[in-house]
Amino acid sequence: MMKVGYIQFHPLFGEVDYNRTHTLELIHQRADADLLVLPELCTTGYLFTDKTELERLAEFIPEGKSTKAWIKIAKETNTYLVAGICEKTKDGKFYNSSVLIGPEGYIDTYRKIHLFNTEKNFFSPGNGPFKIYDIGIAKLGMIICFDWAFPELTRILALNGAEIICHPSNLVLSFAQKVMLARSIENRVYTITANRIGDDIRPSSKLIFTGESQVTSPKMEILLKASVDKEEIGVVEIDPLLAQNKMITANNHIFLDRRVELYQPIINHNELEK
Amino acid sequence: MMKVGYIQFHPLFGEVDYNRTHTLELIHQRADADLLVLPELCTTGYLFTDKTELERLAEFIPEGKSTKAWIKIAKETNTYLVAGICEKTKDGKFYNSSVLIGPEGYIDTYRKIHLFNTEKNFFSPGNGPFKIYDIGIAKLGMIICFDWAFPELTRILALNGAEIICHPSNLVLSFAQKVMLARSIENRVYTITANRIGDDIRPSSKLIFTGESQVTSPKMEILLKASVDKEEIGVVEIDPLLAQNKMITANNHIFLDRRVELYQPIINHNELEK
Repeated sequence: MMKVGYIQFHPLFGEVDYNRTHTLELIHQRADADLLVLPELCTTGYLFTDKTELERLAEFIPEGKSTKAWIKIAKETNTYLVAGICEKTKDGKFYNSSVLIGPEGYIDTYRKIHLFNTEKNFFSPGNGPFKIYDIGIAKLGMIICFDWAFPELTRILALNGAEIICHPSNLVLSFAQKVMLARSIENRVYTITANRIGDDIRPSSKLIFTGESQVTSPKMEILLKASVDKEEIGVVEIDPLLAQNKMITANNHIFLDRRVELYQPIINHNELEK
Repeated sequence: MMKVGYIQFHPLFGEVDYNRTHTLELIHQRADADLLVLPELCTTGYLFTDKTELERLAEFIPEGKSTKAWIKIAKETNTYLVAGICEKTKDGKFYNSSVLIGPEGYIDTYRKIHLFNTEKNFFSPGNGPFKIYDIGIAKLGMIICFDWAFPELTRILALNGAEIICHPSNLVLSFAQKVMLARSIENRVYTITANRIGDDIRPSSKLIFTGESQVTSPKMEILLKASVDKEEIGVVEIDPLLAQNKMITANNHIFLDRRVELYQPIINHNELEK
């Protein structure tokens, strides 16, 4: 058994020091948790309007201040953290990333592979591979926000052994939460969606984020669900072993029953582009 | 625009003549529909207990009485029909199948590829391929009941051009309806789930089927939903062209945004069996 959960809060756009400090306060409040997931881009806010903002607000991983602060608190609280962060690299690229950090220090970064809407103007897409992290008490996989829409990614993470899908998000609609329930049962995994709340009000645009962070189970249960607009930390005890049991009935193994030999589209991906 | 829907009713186990006649009465009631989907195994009932029952109740396709009756009514009413039927073949096999029949006659049969629980004791699994049927006003794909749990199948049908997924079902839980909503948005397709109601009470077992037949849209709307226990025909007008538009945002094509080159599990299917 382990305690897992989400931290739902309102990052202020551009206020990286405030946001980082606030995540540390919130993590401290649930130092009893084994795993906490924080929202996408939770140090910067979401609604970038030009690349100079990215240059100013993005951080190196793991040398940046936020990753270093999370490494410190993960050690102090003996907690694993998955947190969305705006990453910059030495070769001048920017990624919409999530870091996995544990009591033992920095572990790895996942760079979002399915960029949403205008994110394509600012971020480079990640290029995998999709890794699984065995943290001893469970095996974790990471996806970010709009990755929810692509069943292939969570499927592969689950096939590779992920028991818990960590899902930092900045959602404005409520599709993802419903689809993550489908991801849970079709792969028999837990999912933790950590969404933000509040708005990003920028000179030319505005977005309101809609909370409802949630934890779902391999049996398609919603174990925890947050409000649409309140800062909330949700923590629930789960048994990761349940996600190793892929029998959806006495006679159906949800992976071995796949008819992989038949899963060939007639039309290939390249033809779609014509 | 076209009128599509489901016929939700209570097939009586083993009463093939009654069940067939009843489907004809119900189809006649909505002769204005362009496409009607009927439940899985709707001529026989679901809960087979031995193979002699299958031998007695299954039908050849298209020479069997049920397919012939549906061919006749499809012509009379100018309606396309998708109906679940217990199929037998000349080589002594049985399939959990669905037939597609139109005003022009018998079109094709889909044999369920993901057999549920004890169905494995009675039916051979289908072996594809997964075909798409262009009926002029729309392109159709077929899946049956537990196929809902495998995102690959609906994904492939949609990649191959299906605008409407026809889904004859015999559901006892309510997972499938929620997951079919996910199938709708992740593929931007319509889905029509035709579930049955009532119970199959057999010497050694009993199942209660739970209705809630539904039609969902590419925007993840529930356009129509039936009760859990009433005989109902639901028909709604839809625009199949909406399912050709795969742009989920101005910058996201739900198929072209797939990162097919990255979708490779590390663990292969065979290794799972060890």
